[in-house]
Amino acid sequence: MARQLYELCGSDPVRVFSPFCWRSRMALAHKALDFESVPWRFTETDRLAFASHDKVPVLVDGDRVVADSWAIAQHLDEAYPESPSLLHGRPVPYRFVAAWNDAVLQPGIAWLIVSDIPPLLGETERPYFIQSREKRFGRPLDQVTADRETRLPAFRTALQPLRIVLGAQPFLGGDTPDYADHVVFGSFMWARSTSSLKLLEESDAVRAWRERMLDLHGGMARRAPCFGA
Amino acid sequence: MARQLYELCGSDPVRVFSPFCWRSRMALAHKALDFESVPWRFTETDRLAFASHDKVPVLVDGDRVVADSWAIAQHLDEAYPESPSLLHGRPVPYRFVAAWNDAVLQPGIAWLIVSDIPPLLGETERPYFIQSREKRFGRPLDQVTADRETRLPAFRTALQPLRIVLGAQPFLGGDTPDYADHVVFGSFMWARSTSSLKLLEESDAVRAWRERMLDLHGGMARRAPCFGA
Repeated sequence: MARQLYELCGSDPVRVFSPFCWRSRMALAHKALDFESVPWRFTETDRLAFASHDKVPVLVDGDRVVADSWAIAQHLDEAYPESPSLLHGRPVPYRFVAAWNDAVLQPGIAWLIVSDIPPLLGETERPYFIQSREKRFGRPLDQVTADRETRLPAFRTALQPLRIVLGAQPFLGGDTPDYADHVVFGSFMWARSTSSLKLLEESDAVRAWRERMLDLHGGMARRAPCFGA
Repeated sequence: MARQLYELCGSDPVRVFSPFCWRSRMALAHKALDFESVPWRFTETDRLAFASHDKVPVLVDGDRVVADSWAIAQHLDEAYPESPSLLHGRPVPYRFVAAWNDAVLQPGIAWLIVSDIPPLLGETERPYFIQSREKRFGRPLDQVTADRETRLPAFRTALQPLRIVLGAQPFLGGDTPDYADHVVFGSFMWARSTSSLKLLEESDAVRAWRERMLDLHGGMARRAPCFGA
């Protein structure tokens, strides 16, 4: 069986935009593993029943089915120890950067771009997305992002921990990327795939790092459908 | 030569309050290494000339002189590989938690407690401290902290990355503490040693973790002079 990664998309099956799917996509490329992307939409939970899971990413790797991006990273390191390591045999210290990503970076991006996502979705999943996100944010989505230009400076300030590390070394992983880079980059690819909002200033060390990430693996992420911001 | 740690204090030589010195103090205890605390005050740069450095902590370990808390942690792991590890042979993934600590946690605490520090200082270093910190904050120190009760909820919200990790495991290092714990705990010991402000709510997972850290090594940190908050 070919290796398959179930990934979130909207009406365009090639525009994969989930930050968690991007983590796994980058992790597979990091391990130099080919895979077939299987497009999946928000409302297609039935199609993941085989994985006993209701969200993507789901990786089918031979006879192994692995759900959840964190579990996928651990699986890849265990199954392919000869490829460059993602978690270097000790996942624990990566939990904090993932927690910061989930508590600070990802919500920060959501408040800037969430209203750009519905136009990318098909007729079936668009109502689901709008309803569930309006419930989460407690207001219409265009109101969530109405003052986003005003809030950009605060968002950029909140990236200071990244800036400190990336001012001293090219990747969060040191001289080469590791899973910490893929976690954070996944959030930026989510924004880049769905919105034309320019999150990062030209002179920002975080932007320079994002450029390096876009260049990895022959420009895999750079070639993905995006709005170029 | 006995092992010596030069540590910041004020008029009371036992009330060690620098967050960076607490990192090294906890690191030495983690490695089960005895040391003599050498009290040092802000204005005594001449006394560190032997280390070609102007800040504490400075560790004198036999014929080795190591300045800077990060270098001290690396030295301890290299020199004492048989003791429990601080950085597990790979310092890189610890840089992000240290960057978050330095960019978010430590400034957050400073804006809450800085006005409590001058009364702890001697006549010589108090003017230096007030002048340098008022320059940094751009206002008198009592104005920095005047509305601190109002700002406490936002400070607590900013701890969410810690809360996510510590909701799933007892220490940032996993089942046992490692250097990530000591970095973050150092900031909390700075607050606890200098201020009676109650930073953490009783029900907070971060507070429960701080209690576990206070209990380590026979309650070493719990016995240190503090204001009990």
